[in-house]
Amino acid sequence: MEEQGGAMSIGWAARDAGGLLSPYNFPRRVPRDGDITIKVLFCGICHTDLHLIKNEWGNAVYPVVPGHEVVGVVTGVGSGVTKFKAGDTVGVGYFVDSCRSCHSCVAGHENYCPDVVLTSNGVDASSSSTTTRGGFSDTIVVDHRYAVHVPPSLPLPATAPLLCAGVTVYSPMVRYGLNAPGKRLGVVGLGGLGHMAVKFGKAFGMEVTVVSSSPAKRDEALTRLGADEFLVSRDAEQMKAAAGTLDGIIDTVSAGHPIVPLLELLRPLGTMVVVGAPSEPLQLPAYAIIQGGKRVVGNVVGSVGDCQAMLDFAGEHGITADVEVVGMGYVNTAMERLERNDVRYRFVVDVAGSLGAAA
Amino acid sequence: MEEQGGAMSIGWAARDAGGLLSPYNFPRRVPRDGDITIKVLFCGICHTDLHLIKNEWGNAVYPVVPGHEVVGVVTGVGSGVTKFKAGDTVGVGYFVDSCRSCHSCVAGHENYCPDVVLTSNGVDASSSSTTTRGGFSDTIVVDHRYAVHVPPSLPLPATAPLLCAGVTVYSPMVRYGLNAPGKRLGVVGLGGLGHMAVKFGKAFGMEVTVVSSSPAKRDEALTRLGADEFLVSRDAEQMKAAAGTLDGIIDTVSAGHPIVPLLELLRPLGTMVVVGAPSEPLQLPAYAIIQGGKRVVGNVVGSVGDCQAMLDFAGEHGITADVEVVGMGYVNTAMERLERNDVRYRFVVDVAGSLGAAA
Repeated sequence: MEEQGGAMSIGWAARDAGGLLSPYNFPRRVPRDGDITIKVLFCGICHTDLHLIKNEWGNAVYPVVPGHEVVGVVTGVGSGVTKFKAGDTVGVGYFVDSCRSCHSCVAGHENYCPDVVLTSNGVDASSSSTTTRGGFSDTIVVDHRYAVHVPPSLPLPATAPLLCAGVTVYSPMVRYGLNAPGKRLGVVGLGGLGHMAVKFGKAFGMEVTVVSSSPAKRDEALTRLGADEFLVSRDAEQMKAAAGTLDGIIDTVSAGHPIVPLLELLRPLGTMVVVGAPSEPLQLPAYAIIQGGKRVVGNVVGSVGDCQAMLDFAGEHGITADVEVVGMGYVNTAMERLERNDVRYRFVVDVAGSLGAAA
Repeated sequence: MEEQGGAMSIGWAARDAGGLLSPYNFPRRVPRDGDITIKVLFCGICHTDLHLIKNEWGNAVYPVVPGHEVVGVVTGVGSGVTKFKAGDTVGVGYFVDSCRSCHSCVAGHENYCPDVVLTSNGVDASSSSTTTRGGFSDTIVVDHRYAVHVPPSLPLPATAPLLCAGVTVYSPMVRYGLNAPGKRLGVVGLGGLGHMAVKFGKAFGMEVTVVSSSPAKRDEALTRLGADEFLVSRDAEQMKAAAGTLDGIIDTVSAGHPIVPLLELLRPLGTMVVVGAPSEPLQLPAYAIIQGGKRVVGNVVGSVGDCQAMLDFAGEHGITADVEVVGMGYVNTAMERLERNDVRYRFVVDVAGSLGAAA
């Protein structure tokens, strides 16, 4: 893994499925003509990072340097780069490369490229099949086509989670027309993804209903996040009264849960977007979608274009994530807290401000 | 049930959940200003009729006169009707009325109106809550807004099934862009719905792959119906070789079946349309739609507008169903054969040609 030959980077990595993160020095690749080198300022922590460092999907190539919600500043650009210059504030999200020739890439959906290269633990086929290392590190080198501009109005720590959590809900909302004033959006689950969906929904001018299994989240949803309605998913009467009222639902819940009561909230031809990934199959009776012509659709993050559009929209509307900023020395504790959903709503590592001290 | 007060109609009805059909005389409603009276010529037999006469959905109001794939000739029009005149050849499909004021009706999706009135065993709220009686009868009286013109080029017996089976596959194909030359369509199951999907797909200029659990259907699919490819769903190697190649799938199978192998056939952002209704829930792992941004959507028939567009398209392209025409005296046998899928591909009752004789 040391064959990349570029400048050394200081990061934190997990060495085995225990998932404990500790300092790790490794070489980045030699920058190419199309590359930019980024000094990482902040990096969000996503549930995917947790799955990855513990090898829950069985594909971890240790040492694993997690992190794919990166904001930083450009420190160097290759000769072929015109989109960025040194000093620009940029973001890098869930992936850093794709084939640029498949059906999905040509259509501008490179997030669905079968050869997409993830930012962390991805297989970088173009670089001697080395494994990519993420944003829990002082620098990162990426092809400029996979970086985005961060609008100057946005505070950086709270912007980092937009690069994954933000675009994961924004892009299907736009794709499925759930971005129109007056339309009614349901957001199921109020975590990292859910709280972003509420914010985007309100900024789009929609009526937003939060659906949660926890009645304790009512005030949070209505008062702090500005949702219009709150439904307790286990309250059959409440759910029945709201039947057929929603144009779309963003379902962010990653624990197993029944989806028929959610589908019943949809109007005919309504769309439920699945962005949480329970380990057990969803139980989908055909009648629940046949009657009403309803749709259950999946989504993974968004394209680079989606990500830039999302950040531009966020900049115009002042949308950021609610975050708890921590130093690198706290990441193992943060991972433990994340595992029990003890964060409101996203941890962000102050990489530049803490990496030297923590290491 | 005898309060409708209009002309007497001669039909065949089931009297109980045994489902045996026998002659039955009943009054149609007194025609209103917006109504047309139709002499029924042919009526297709749909699986729904079988479920209904045996009360498999628990909502049958006996006597049940089935039939919702009706072609006939207009014999009378109300004073408010300009769309049709006596002598016109018309079709009536799965429903005969809707509220015309709800979200779905206003948007032209009256097939998803919560108060839609089905053609057979429907609750006709506008008519003293009587129960509608279908096309297994010599005449039918319907609001002209729910009837369609049959293009003169189409042979009538083979056109009847288009009113339900045809529009059920045509309308989602158009809605989801599965009507474009060069796109690749999968058709799962080769019965009444499936064989229509193959015909429409080829007429749209698509590459059509039939997916069936039965290798014996290969010749039928490729030679008789003109499909381009044939996959045996249980052949894992064949299925794997075709992974990621289809833009969309019409899944017509009403027996329980795994859908993950079908979803794997789809390209990223591909759509699987569910029009068959297995009694057990579909098992849908979230990853199977999240990876690739895939969609599982339901569909019930189509709007009146869809139905007219479908018939116009069928008229231009010479598309009809493959049918076995039977007399009314044969319907109980036809129902038995339908139950064991012993028909290629749709029974059609020659109502006008056999009703007097059979009764």
